[in-house]
Amino acid sequence: MAGQPPLSPWMGSDYYTPCWDSGVRDDAWLLASRMEKSEEPTPGVYWKPVPDSPIRMLDHWDNMDGTIERGYAGRSLFFEDGKFREDWQLLAQYADLLASIRINAVSLNNVNVRDKARWLITNKHGELDKVAKIAEIFAERGIATYLSVNFAAPKVIGGLDTSDPLDARVETFWRERVEEIYSKVEHFGGFVVKADAEGEPGPYQYGRTHADGANLFARLLAPHGGLVFWRAFVYNCEQDWRDRTTDRAKAAWENFKPLDGFFEPNVVLQVKNGPLDFQIKEPVSPLLLGLESTRTACEFQASQEYLGQQQHAVFLAPLWKEVLDSELCASALVCVANTGLDESWTGHKLAQANLYAFGRLAWDSSLTPQQIAREWVQLTFPDASDRAREAIERICAESRGAYRDYTTNLGLCFMCRPGFHYGVDPDGYEYDRWGTYHFADRDGIGVDRTVATGSGYTAQYPPALAALYEDVSTCPDDVVLYFHHLPYAHRLQSGKSIAQHVYDAHFSGAQKAEDFRRTWAEIAGELGSARVFDTLARFDEQLRSATEWRDVINTYFYRHSGIADEHGRVIYP
Amino acid sequence: MAGQPPLSPWMGSDYYTPCWDSGVRDDAWLLASRMEKSEEPTPGVYWKPVPDSPIRMLDHWDNMDGTIERGYAGRSLFFEDGKFREDWQLLAQYADLLASIRINAVSLNNVNVRDKARWLITNKHGELDKVAKIAEIFAERGIATYLSVNFAAPKVIGGLDTSDPLDARVETFWRERVEEIYSKVEHFGGFVVKADAEGEPGPYQYGRTHADGANLFARLLAPHGGLVFWRAFVYNCEQDWRDRTTDRAKAAWENFKPLDGFFEPNVVLQVKNGPLDFQIKEPVSPLLLGLESTRTACEFQASQEYLGQQQHAVFLAPLWKEVLDSELCASALVCVANTGLDESWTGHKLAQANLYAFGRLAWDSSLTPQQIAREWVQLTFPDASDRAREAIERICAESRGAYRDYTTNLGLCFMCRPGFHYGVDPDGYEYDRWGTYHFADRDGIGVDRTVATGSGYTAQYPPALAALYEDVSTCPDDVVLYFHHLPYAHRLQSGKSIAQHVYDAHFSGAQKAEDFRRTWAEIAGELGSARVFDTLARFDEQLRSATEWRDVINTYFYRHSGIADEHGRVIYP
Repeated sequence: MAGQPPLSPWMGSDYYTPCWDSGVRDDAWLLASRMEKSEEPTPGVYWKPVPDSPIRMLDHWDNMDGTIERGYAGRSLFFEDGKFREDWQLLAQYADLLASIRINAVSLNNVNVRDKARWLITNKHGELDKVAKIAEIFAERGIATYLSVNFAAPKVIGGLDTSDPLDARVETFWRERVEEIYSKVEHFGGFVVKADAEGEPGPYQYGRTHADGANLFARLLAPHGGLVFWRAFVYNCEQDWRDRTTDRAKAAWENFKPLDGFFEPNVVLQVKNGPLDFQIKEPVSPLLLGLESTRTACEFQASQEYLGQQQHAVFLAPLWKEVLDSELCASALVCVANTGLDESWTGHKLAQANLYAFGRLAWDSSLTPQQIAREWVQLTFPDASDRAREAIERICAESRGAYRDYTTNLGLCFMCRPGFHYGVDPDGYEYDRWGTYHFADRDGIGVDRTVATGSGYTAQYPPALAALYEDVSTCPDDVVLYFHHLPYAHRLQSGKSIAQHVYDAHFSGAQKAEDFRRTWAEIAGELGSARVFDTLARFDEQLRSATEWRDVINTYFYRHSGIADEHGRVIYP
Repeated sequence: MAGQPPLSPWMGSDYYTPCWDSGVRDDAWLLASRMEKSEEPTPGVYWKPVPDSPIRMLDHWDNMDGTIERGYAGRSLFFEDGKFREDWQLLAQYADLLASIRINAVSLNNVNVRDKARWLITNKHGELDKVAKIAEIFAERGIATYLSVNFAAPKVIGGLDTSDPLDARVETFWRERVEEIYSKVEHFGGFVVKADAEGEPGPYQYGRTHADGANLFARLLAPHGGLVFWRAFVYNCEQDWRDRTTDRAKAAWENFKPLDGFFEPNVVLQVKNGPLDFQIKEPVSPLLLGLESTRTACEFQASQEYLGQQQHAVFLAPLWKEVLDSELCASALVCVANTGLDESWTGHKLAQANLYAFGRLAWDSSLTPQQIAREWVQLTFPDASDRAREAIERICAESRGAYRDYTTNLGLCFMCRPGFHYGVDPDGYEYDRWGTYHFADRDGIGVDRTVATGSGYTAQYPPALAALYEDVSTCPDDVVLYFHHLPYAHRLQSGKSIAQHVYDAHFSGAQKAEDFRRTWAEIAGELGSARVFDTLARFDEQLRSATEWRDVINTYFYRHSGIADEHGRVIYP
């Protein structure tokens, strides 16, 4: 691709094909085991011999028209205008990038499989020949290639009148697809499936369970060593806001916990880290703590759908680290990619750090966000002064907290603009069908998810956590409104009232955005790249947006609570 | 067009070419004067000899790709896929329809003139030949044809580096356009221009006034007897919600009142009836009461953009009648069309009544909504029983009040979904850039537009009205929150509190929607057309939507005010 910049210092010539230790390779379902071991150290980066997560997968939500769903880094690296882009050199560069952080699996296409992408599992127009070429490029770097498939393919491309997973004709359809794929694509990893979610087809349409659905694929893929990543993002997206008996946070557990033990061993249940969605702060999904007999992947999202859409600098390692520090049952880590044709791969220069962090944490979850940021800054800006590097590390360290502070605090979620998921609209989802309410009124705000008086969601957690969350006096401040509906004057564990906490956080968070912008402007001169100045424009937008969030949320709380700021700062009436 | 139904009984064979009395025809700027007089009575419909409004114009917001901006009755009658549709037979039927209600001017294309529509003023691809053909069809029925033009055409299609209305090259560009148009289009009426509005180009970009802009066109059109309809819908659509000094309701007056007397006589300043936009209940635009030396058109909108989008039955004659009963200075009436390729022309069968009502009121503003509804029902359902006809008349009579009751009362506006303008989202516009706020907090709601303590908007009205609106004790209930910010417990002139009024109106309005639906189901059998049953589905949607509005708005007021319903009805907490 013309205009593609040289690789960042932390990969390129420094990359090497990842190694997989036999300690994990004895797991026969791991395609990665087929790859050759190689070792060559990246300067300054220590890779411990055995990765914590044997599968470290990047899911692309790329459409064949070249767009990327919730993508903020330009157009697709794989597709354009209904066809494959076929820029093999660029893909080799990209594969180098991913291999340098030891990603070992990629899914190429959007989990919402529409239009021409439904035919990717065929060779109708040579699709599989192209997939094979891509898979070869990735495999040379130790990366297995997956495809997202449409559960309804037997009907929509197979000419059948059903996609019932227990129908013999449906099984035949999929067997033929799997056989053809493996006959053409040497290093194929398997399928990713989003079923019965947000309007996508699935086994529920036929009165079947998700185990019925996933196992169909798993049995067909097993002889080839393939896996099926089955997404657990299943909830009622036609909820009535008047219905207080339904709680979206409970949905993944309700749909999948009863099936624990009924999945084939090469099914990987792919669970988003947050029970609602990829919000800035949620408690970890209880399903990730409670599945005992199912292979599970924890799904992160580097693409900052709700987190500033790569206009805002938000280093996600602290968020992911919190999740990984839980007692996860996950045996794989998946991340929604934040990459695209953009010159910096990721739109915002600092968004590269999230891709890097995912690879590092998936390999070694004992790393701290600080360590990862330091590595990335060192590798990316090797010629910058200590002062500049420390400044960037500080932005990384503080950015996730700043974003939370100037957007939604205390476990509140979904105060963003519906559909866009960027910008502030505190009541935008309040009367909508998505099950993402905060129930603010003149007296209080938050969702009562307790067993005692609320939706009973806390019961999905292991006993100690359940007790912690159930009791408002022990529930951590940063998720307290996720579990409790409380008056604005309620005293948090910090000693502040809810209203005062919100005001303080928003003034402080927006101030951070201003600090980041000024800091970047000060050091940009020594970072040695024209693109660094493009990044300054993103910090401008972050500051504008953070100020907007600050003022709207503060006004929203003031209008509802009537509580004035103790420090007399400007809150618009 | 295949599938186009027979004409409704109130036109078709009963139509005749409109007559224009010499009493208005001595106005040389009226193209209609060129048409021949003809008289033939429509049975049961009395047309007084002299119309109240010499120009009775329908503005189509049709795009050349075949879509219609804010259109809810199918695709464009004029355009498809970037070209003219060229269904001359259909257009002749349509012209018959409009002539039967004595419409005497149409504008063909969207006021937002984009893409290929910018070339309509040229014959580059034979555009003007096609416009001439359409104009001929309309002219045969006494209707003049207008085009919307893009103010920036000198730059975007003329190759100039400016569109400054005082630049000689710009004048030359437009002169050539006007000359070519009149050389090709025999019955051309003139231009419609939306300038400096919602991102459209305009004279402000060059430091010129709207008189400078409008007069440029007017002087070029004058020798041909043409007019320029210059829209007064100019406001700051990038407003900061934090800025309380700007009031969108004041914008039309602020932009145009100072220019009163500076427009050429063949400029018609086209002013929306509502100061904000086409809301269900606003006070009349003060500009329509205050221009003394400018020809003015009052612009209505039959296309129910904010009023149920032709899914809801809303007979607009009562709304328009309220406006016409003011001391309007308008010398023309314009209406945004609600027509399209839809089999019933208007989507909802009852939406036809709005088109009919516009024609009738434009000719004779002394008619009552009841008279108009009776005529339309009689002409449209001649074989229905008295019971059925009375039922439809009752729906017409009650529907506007019902829509207001279940959506927004007391002069509140813009509680709809941003962008779509359908469905409820009480705070959807509250922190946005459109200047349409209601400032609800835990204590009260409404916009203080008084001189004493608010934006001073009331001062734009003639003294008696200004005094009426300024004083909360005399301000009519149905616009009281348009002019005042009041506590929820404030007693209205009706004796009810604001909160109780809102609850009562919403329960009653939604009940009406249920009544309408049941009534229509009862009489549908005798209305003699399959399409009547399609209409029943629209009443289903109206009921669903009305119920949603009722519950969301009631909950919104309850959450903010804490005031319970006196009658203990269900309000979700």
